[in-house]
Amino acid sequence: MGTGAAFFTVPTSSGVFSLRRANQADLPHVVRLLAEDQLGASRETPDDLAPYQAAFKAIDNDPAHLLIVGVLRGDIVATFQLTFLPSLSRRGAWRAQIEAVRVSSALRSQGIGQLMMQWAIECSRQRGCSLVQLTTDKSRGAAHQFYKRLGFTATHEGMKLTL
Amino acid sequence: MGTGAAFFTVPTSSGVFSLRRANQADLPHVVRLLAEDQLGASRETPDDLAPYQAAFKAIDNDPAHLLIVGVLRGDIVATFQLTFLPSLSRRGAWRAQIEAVRVSSALRSQGIGQLMMQWAIECSRQRGCSLVQLTTDKSRGAAHQFYKRLGFTATHEGMKLTL
Repeated sequence: MGTGAAFFTVPTSSGVFSLRRANQADLPHVVRLLAEDQLGASRETPDDLAPYQAAFKAIDNDPAHLLIVGVLRGDIVATFQLTFLPSLSRRGAWRAQIEAVRVSSALRSQGIGQLMMQWAIECSRQRGCSLVQLTTDKSRGAAHQFYKRLGFTATHEGMKLTL
Repeated sequence: MGTGAAFFTVPTSSGVFSLRRANQADLPHVVRLLAEDQLGASRETPDDLAPYQAAFKAIDNDPAHLLIVGVLRGDIVATFQLTFLPSLSRRGAWRAQIEAVRVSSALRSQGIGQLMMQWAIECSRQRGCSLVQLTTDKSRGAAHQFYKRLGFTATHEGMKLTL
């Protein structure tokens, strides 16, 4: 898979914004967005792309995953990963899971994140998912408000164990 | 896939306990465990297995997922789902995700959950995952303490949107 038509194109006050599946050539831009993030700064190595290339292949080869980029006037300014997970609970419900949502710091609070998440929710609905889930670091207060406005509720503790 | 050898067998004060991959014949027992749960009681339909059978096939056919049952003296007394997810963030880290952990109410606080989660963590490490993650409903206070004892930290808000 890889390159392809935009899933979504919309005019914004900053120019035409579109969402499409990420391709290999987008990877340095996506990693830059991850590294630009306050928590990502210490976790990512944008100068060493090898581990990201292996992960990109695993994501791109599996139809359970969609790695998405947001493109504004030709520049990659946003990204997220959408994953579809079968589960037994809730009467065998499919779940959609959103990970690694990033919007370029220069473009925050302009509605780009909202456009992306509304698309992700609609895509999840069309795929037959009963639930969309995500976790967000407790230090990201603005993100919690953002997701609540989109209809999410913070019903769960998100627990992590680093190996 | 389906049936197979136990991944893990250990003597306990209640008899021999083992973990193995769930098979189709286990499904009614697994759904009963889901329905027995305080939150599952209103969400599950153990008398109508059709939606669970479809979900079981999707889980069982995808090597990204392991649906596990815990067996004590031949009875299915526990279950969980372990999923391996590729991601770009954290230098292309693989994540293990744990969902739908249930132990028969008659057997709580006897160490069965701990045996299962310790196995899940070790399995995730052997698969090369850098992180194990799960979410647990905020109403399950005892579960939070349980996961903290296993080394998890509640760093994230777990947000859900029902479609």
